[in-house]
Amino acid sequence: MRRLGDGVEAALHCALVLCWLEPGKVLPGKSLAEMHGLSESYLLKHMRALTEAGLVEALPGPRGGYRLARRPGEITLLDIVEAIDGKEPAFTCKEIRRRGPGKSKDRCAYKTDCFIKRRMLAAEELWRQSLRAQTLADLAQDGAALIDAESQKTIAAFVREAQR
Amino acid sequence: MRRLGDGVEAALHCALVLCWLEPGKVLPGKSLAEMHGLSESYLLKHMRALTEAGLVEALPGPRGGYRLARRPGEITLLDIVEAIDGKEPAFTCKEIRRRGPGKSKDRCAYKTDCFIKRRMLAAEELWRQSLRAQTLADLAQDGAALIDAESQKTIAAFVREAQR
Ligand code: FES
Ligand code: FES
Repeated sequence: MRRLGDGVEAALHCALVLCWLEPGKVLPGKSLAEMHGLSESYLLKHMRALTEAGLVEALPGPRGGYRLARRPGEITLLDIVEAIDGKEPAFTCKEIRRRGPGKSKDRCAYKTDCFIKRRMLAAEELWRQSLRAQTLADLAQDGAALIDAESQKTIAAFVREAQR
Repeated sequence: MRRLGDGVEAALHCALVLCWLEPGKVLPGKSLAEMHGLSESYLLKHMRALTEAGLVEALPGPRGGYRLARRPGEITLLDIVEAIDGKEPAFTCKEIRRRGPGKSKDRCAYKTDCFIKRRMLAAEELWRQSLRAQTLADLAQDGAALIDAESQKTIAAFVREAQR
């Protein structure tokens, strides 16, 4: 499979951090970047994609920043992946069945997708379904269970300090 | 998901055609290219990848050509996809959890993969499993059932004529 953009990793980690904000608060882009050791310009590109997809709200101005546009349980991993990487299928079919001497003279032959394309798209649909069945709430739960206590405290303090 | 190389479509269609050869025969690269309306140089690059992966045998010389290296039921769709597109995961993790103020001081914290990475890799593993469960024999069966009779005849005649 071709690689997903590395922005997907950053977007998932940032969205997780936004789960930890107090209600009504936002986190500045600068803090999100600092939190992940990433350049602000790199991160802002991906935050813009999340905002355009309606997953994140961006409040402008000096007291502005980002917050989730929906509850964590209502934002799937697929929402985030598709916001960053697009919705196009991974498998590219250029209809090569219509070329060469084997092409059909039957006008109905191409009304349904090529059987090879169908199998390839069905396979990637399993990947999509799996990502659609997982939400930011699952990541938040993982974080609470799996990030060591010391780091959780540091992260919580950082977010508390940085939020507006 | 990022797009797979379009060589995957060509490779799958070519591998299917090789299923239709008589035992002991090979199909010249030129004929494979003609069959799919593709340039020979484009196709040969992908046939070389299939050969290097041990899925196809290339017989050299003027009477040379390609044939499957294993029975159709022993060549999975994943074999072909990975031969063309590589085995790297689609999800790229640059370990951003180790950066910024949230990084752990606990030396054991990074012994297991990040929970985000684990979920992303598990999702694409479903895609891989599905492609691993399907073989060229399935495509050949589809072809027999779904390609119209007229085209099947034309293809069979073309292969019979071109094989060596
Ligand atoms: S024509 Fe595109 S996969 Fe068959
Ligand atoms: S550190 Fe790479 S996905 Fe979490």
